[in-house]
Amino acid sequence: MSITTHRRHRGDFTWEDTPVLAYKQADTAPFRDVTRQVLFEDAQLGCQLRYFEIAPAGHTTLERHQHLHAVMIIRGGGQCLVGERVFAVAAHDLVHIPSLSWHQFRADAEGPLGFLCLVNAERDRPQLPSPEDLIVLCQNAHVAEFIRC
Amino acid sequence: MSITTHRRHRGDFTWEDTPVLAYKQADTAPFRDVTRQVLFEDAQLGCQLRYFEIAPAGHTTLERHQHLHAVMIIRGGGQCLVGERVFAVAAHDLVHIPSLSWHQFRADAEGPLGFLCLVNAERDRPQLPSPEDLIVLCQNAHVAEFIRC
Repeated sequence: MSITTHRRHRGDFTWEDTPVLAYKQADTAPFRDVTRQVLFEDAQLGCQLRYFEIAPAGHTTLERHQHLHAVMIIRGGGQCLVGERVFAVAAHDLVHIPSLSWHQFRADAEGPLGFLCLVNAERDRPQLPSPEDLIVLCQNAHVAEFIRC
Repeated sequence: MSITTHRRHRGDFTWEDTPVLAYKQADTAPFRDVTRQVLFEDAQLGCQLRYFEIAPAGHTTLERHQHLHAVMIIRGGGQCLVGERVFAVAAHDLVHIPSLSWHQFRADAEGPLGFLCLVNAERDRPQLPSPEDLIVLCQNAHVAEFIRC
């Protein structure tokens, strides 16, 4: 059996036998201070469970895609954009990001924001906003104030 | 959109718009003091994320199946059997339960054990141990001491 049965949490949101990875290839998309760990991926599961952690005041990429995100916050707090809504999130909150919804997560300035993100094993690549998309997004003042590109 | 974008954690491991369900139909299998909440299920995800909570000293059913379980403990502590191993688990530990491995979770006497369990949307029904299976399982003294049937 190649997959470890029990991977202990090290106490700092890292796990045994689970490398801390770059969030994305540098220069492919704008983001700030985000790491990625793949917690479970197996062809038999049909999906992948990842843990992302955003350092204080950091943010993920503003993007959208056909595939869904199913998210549970497990560390700290922050805010997120889903579609045209910006809202605060805290530990153990659940966030469902529908197909083709613009979304972005940001950590509070006081501490990191860590969350589980579940995706289908087969999924499309994220799309970044075009200048025209940004004009539309920024017609909502709350969204305009929140997003980082 | 029928799925709620943001379901807040109520602070006691229940969530908005997320019913607390029976673990299994009564009398279909032995277990003690377990509840189930379906956190995410969507055909587009290909999998289902559930939260199970075992009351102090309670236990899940001793069972096995073809499908995998990918587990993260998120509340309390306890012990589990996977295959022939019995080990202690604590918050944020990861447990991978391979195909056809006998498994059972038990909460510590001092508090509940809560965990996320990820499964493929298409999966087989659990199998209960036959008398012959129990004889084999109980050849290991640690397993014999741990299991509840």
